[in-house]
Amino acid sequence: MIRLFVDGNLEFGEPFEPRPEQARYLTQVMRLGVGAEILAFNGRDGEWRCRIAQMSKRGCVLEPTVRTRPQAFGPDLDLVLALVKRGPLETIVEKATELGARRIRLAITRRTNADHANLNRLRAIAAEAAEQTGRLDAPDIQEPEKLERLLDGWDVGRRLMFCDEAGDDFAAEWGGSSGRASVALKVLADQPAGPWAVLIGPEGGFDAQERERLRTLPYVAPVSLGPRILRADTAAISALTLWQCALGDWR
Amino acid sequence: MIRLFVDGNLEFGEPFEPRPEQARYLTQVMRLGVGAEILAFNGRDGEWRCRIAQMSKRGCVLEPTVRTRPQAFGPDLDLVLALVKRGPLETIVEKATELGARRIRLAITRRTNADHANLNRLRAIAAEAAEQTGRLDAPDIQEPEKLERLLDGWDVGRRLMFCDEAGDDFAAEWGGSSGRASVALKVLADQPAGPWAVLIGPEGGFDAQERERLRTLPYVAPVSLGPRILRADTAAISALTLWQCALGDWR
Repeated sequence: MIRLFVDGNLEFGEPFEPRPEQARYLTQVMRLGVGAEILAFNGRDGEWRCRIAQMSKRGCVLEPTVRTRPQAFGPDLDLVLALVKRGPLETIVEKATELGARRIRLAITRRTNADHANLNRLRAIAAEAAEQTGRLDAPDIQEPEKLERLLDGWDVGRRLMFCDEAGDDFAAEWGGSSGRASVALKVLADQPAGPWAVLIGPEGGFDAQERERLRTLPYVAPVSLGPRILRADTAAISALTLWQCALGDWR
Repeated sequence: MIRLFVDGNLEFGEPFEPRPEQARYLTQVMRLGVGAEILAFNGRDGEWRCRIAQMSKRGCVLEPTVRTRPQAFGPDLDLVLALVKRGPLETIVEKATELGARRIRLAITRRTNADHANLNRLRAIAAEAAEQTGRLDAPDIQEPEKLERLLDGWDVGRRLMFCDEAGDDFAAEWGGSSGRASVALKVLADQPAGPWAVLIGPEGGFDAQERERLRTLPYVAPVSLGPRILRADTAAISALTLWQCALGDWR
């Protein structure tokens, strides 16, 4: 059944109008008529079966009839993502939604060339991925901010999985028995659950000063993602997968 | 330093000509001249530092000078991938290369609409990913074949991680303590290392008959990839990551 991430409140017997492009999708692309049913969620009121109650040239009216799932959220996991090129950026937003990130924060690092992202487009990608993956919310995507400022304001109660692709010697320094020892899963196995974030660097990696600062922060867990060099989108998907397995809802 | 996956043998003092498009890349795109050095590997002779020994309008000659790494291979891991649309197919080939798959087998399942893939293009994508990720071989990509035939000829010494996205009740049936219990990592933790393959289904999932057959095969380990529905490319990356963590070279 079609699932839509909608803006309006979902309440029994309270009809609402979906956004114009959603109405067009239902009536013109999918050719549904009055009486047809879909599923809707808004990140607040759970998932509802909704009936097309009215149709007009300008749109349609949906009427919530049965709540099919109560509102629920995945684990408290943020993705902090250095701005990368549009292609991988959009891939990562889609995949982070499927992998249950609650919030996506875009960071400008020293090796980041871009300072702009099309947030409307990224939010639309996240909403569509949420519809398809079955979750009851879409990740909140925030304006890009400088990594330094983001760390200045960090809530120290939120731990940070630092995927340090450059970090070979670094891994050894952090207590691994070999240069490769502190692979993600081993590091995470000893960590508490609770609020977390995954940090993925830009294609060129973090610079020495950024890595130095990240090393010294008490809430940071640096991890290695195996012996091969990963592109940013691969690293993001792998890291979110491992976090969900070790500490999240894939346990 | 530029890394190239080449066809020719790599041996000290034995000059060779790279493929015409590689020569063009070195001399015209990167504007290297005689004396410049690159790294080359061929999946057989390790990685060699090579010097541009000659240049002409028609190409160039590379001369291996120092072997920088002996030939090595990653764990014996195949990816068996139901044919999907070109976009996700190409993404999966790139990512499977980064994540260390040794061989990629394309399967035609009952819900697969396509029976053709551009193998030359997929092999070029794998070669480029191998150059970037630092491995010393590129995965072998084979002609598509029917899933049934592929299973008929299966080497029973190779275990198969069956990512059953449809498999909720199924997971319970297979001995999990809850419907979600047999998540990949728990299943894999009890399994032997050695030859393995990861099986990723088509976008619509396997059909009942295929799942029934897969269930009964003694070498199959069915796993769940968490509570959300994953697209095929996400599932492939997540599954390969988990396998590398549990049984491969991310341990």
